Amino acid sequence: MPSFNQFLKNTIEQTPLDPIVLDKPIEIGELPTPALTIDLEIFERNLENMQSYLDSCNLGLRSHGKMHKCPIIAKKQIEHGALGICTATVSEAEMMVRAGIEDILITSPIATTDKIARVIEMGLVTDKLHLVVDDVGNATALNIAARDAGIILSVYIDLDPPMGRTGVEQGAPALALGQHLTDECNNLSLDGLQIYIGSCMHIHGFEKRRDRYARMMALTASTREMFLQAGIDVPVVSGGGTGSYNMESDIGVLTEVQAGSYVFMDVEYREIGGEKTELFSDFEPSLHVLVTAISKPQKKLITVDAGYKSFASDTVKPQFKDIEGVDFNWGGDEHGIILLNNPSVEIRLGDKLPIVTPHCDPTVNLYDYYFPHRDGVVSEIWPIAARGKSQ
Amino acid sequence: MPSFNQFLKNTIEQTPLDPIVLDKPIEIGELPTPALTIDLEIFERNLENMQSYLDSCNLGLRSHGKMHKCPIIAKKQIEHGALGICTATVSEAEMMVRAGIEDILITSPIATTDKIARVIEMGLVTDKLHLVVDDVGNATALNIAARDAGIILSVYIDLDPPMGRTGVEQGAPALALGQHLTDECNNLSLDGLQIYIGSCMHIHGFEKRRDRYARMMALTASTREMFLQAGIDVPVVSGGGTGSYNMESDIGVLTEVQAGSYVFMDVEYREIGGEKTELFSDFEPSLHVLVTAISKPQKKLITVDAGYKSFASDTVKPQFKDIEGVDFNWGGDEHGIILLNNPSVEIRLGDKLPIVTPHCDPTVNLYDYYFPHRDGVVSEIWPIAARGKSQ
Repeated sequence: MPSFNQFLKNTIEQTPLDPIVLDKPIEIGELPTPALTIDLEIFERNLENMQSYLDSCNLGLRSHGKMHKCPIIAKKQIEHGALGICTATVSEAEMMVRAGIEDILITSPIATTDKIARVIEMGLVTDKLHLVVDDVGNATALNIAARDAGIILSVYIDLDPPMGRTGVEQGAPALALGQHLTDECNNLSLDGLQIYIGSCMHIHGFEKRRDRYARMMALTASTREMFLQAGIDVPVVSGGGTGSYNMESDIGVLTEVQAGSYVFMDVEYREIGGEKTELFSDFEPSLHVLVTAISKPQKKLITVDAGYKSFASDTVKPQFKDIEGVDFNWGGDEHGIILLNNPSVEIRLGDKLPIVTPHCDPTVNLYDYYFPHRDGVVSEIWPIAARGKSQ
Repeated sequence: MPSFNQFLKNTIEQTPLDPIVLDKPIEIGELPTPALTIDLEIFERNLENMQSYLDSCNLGLRSHGKMHKCPIIAKKQIEHGALGICTATVSEAEMMVRAGIEDILITSPIATTDKIARVIEMGLVTDKLHLVVDDVGNATALNIAARDAGIILSVYIDLDPPMGRTGVEQGAPALALGQHLTDECNNLSLDGLQIYIGSCMHIHGFEKRRDRYARMMALTASTREMFLQAGIDVPVVSGGGTGSYNMESDIGVLTEVQAGSYVFMDVEYREIGGEKTELFSDFEPSLHVLVTAISKPQKKLITVDAGYKSFASDTVKPQFKDIEGVDFNWGGDEHGIILLNNPSVEIRLGDKLPIVTPHCDPTVNLYDYYFPHRDGVVSEIWPIAARGKSQ
């Protein structure tokens, strides 16, 4: 009979972490569906393109691990040159620490004593753990816990863009929190600011997105200036994402970019449009859900075995990778109903077909494994070790 | 290095199945959030109420395991008197078979050779496995596989209500499939019909729902009559759900009811209305997501640590269990932004609060464990063994 804390530790330590190498490679068509596949050629190109672009701008890449939830991928990003990763949750970070990753920013405030105790435990393992704070009371609680453990915790001040999600109001309230941290919190090291303007990332049209984003980022530039005027150095400004990665250099506020979705891409990001292209095609979709056509109840319909439990349903609909002239309609938890308007390819019962995910992050969170393939051949399987680690 | 088949078997056999009994009970408030909790008192009352109601109508309960994905709960349903369970997928059924459950109906067609091989393996373990068929070619493939394995597989014909998801057209096409099964498929035993009119389950207003449902079920009554006229006995008619459970006896078509959501209930079902009540309150919500207030970026807002990765987002929004005068707004993958219109309770940073799930099935599918509690005390943890088993 475990204690509750031992149970929690087991959920981290007993989850498969490493690639499962198959004794004999299989073809993608042998996978039971729905299955989450990665086209390695496109995946690697996406990693390289983002890293080399940010290198050319002298910007750091702090890739967001909340998207892929997979230490195997986090390590590949670091090998490509990422300075570290982000996670959204404590348990995602614990999985990354277990995998040996050191430089981790948890991008959401840690507001309860049970989770503060867990970040302190991580802080004892890696001195490159960074937290965000947006509240004086919370900063005080973190400082006391760090002091009691005899460590210094690195913190960034989380700024509200404003979009009303997390973060302290920019300007004077942020500076007041900064002064509290520098004056009163000896066991917290104020190392940076975080500004993530999620409300801008999916604005359709490059210019419209850039203009709105740049206007909002001006508030962060002036907030940072207030910190410098007050003698508080904030060497790091962390934020941005796949939708703003090629605006940051001109805007000149961030020092590191928290892009995540560029690795896999999805329908939602494709549709925002690129700098010179109607579709945002700087990165190509490398992630697909392989589905099977399982029923043909009516002449103009065919049903696949993937619904709300296989695709995120918060935004746009899934799109077939290779088939035009069809519409995906939700058919409940386990089904998608495909309207065969004028299909470019005949779909028969039993056919297995790749679909681009509507929104990659919450889609990934539905699966236990990635099936990476090269030219349709799967030779190893990657556990999505931090899947469901929403705590 | 495992073979791919061994890997697949491991995903079933190595998943925790049994209750994890804690050495010392904990309070619900100690759970790291977001956490999926079950109020055992309400849960047990829901189990009892559904079973005793259907008993009183001489209807069987074939509870749907796709909702809870938990063999522990399936066994409790059977102990209460359910004649068996349903699953939506092969891998859910494999998990139930592993747990020792015998009478299982897989409610979606099995259309590929890899999955046919897996149901045959299950058919060798339990002779109470039932499949659905809606296509002659598919029936032939199943029959050959059963013949080669030397077993008889029980099948139900899946009927399209019509709603264009799965199922053969009712009337003559269904009968033709029935004749094919009885004449040509010696290794398939045609034991019943399945009719699930998902499109009716959430019609708001009892009378409107009942009238529409009864009209649609008339087509199944006449289809069954055609079978009897043709000398084909179909002793079982399986279907219906929580939204129709108390209509089935009057309609008189079903012999067993596939209700699932009654166990936990959710906002979506509450809102459809009951026979005599504005809210559908025949069963009470026993399932909650416990969340924490983590940030207060603006005066009228407070943010909780649960978004698209912690709640299904296909339908209505999450609702606080105990707080009125607030609105939940999606704040992305990991956040909910609570608009504090006129809150009946003050919400402070760090508070842990229970929320009724919008749609229980795809919400459950986001979590690895249930935390059942009695009066707020958790003494064991139930693995959601078939979570993510969408294949």
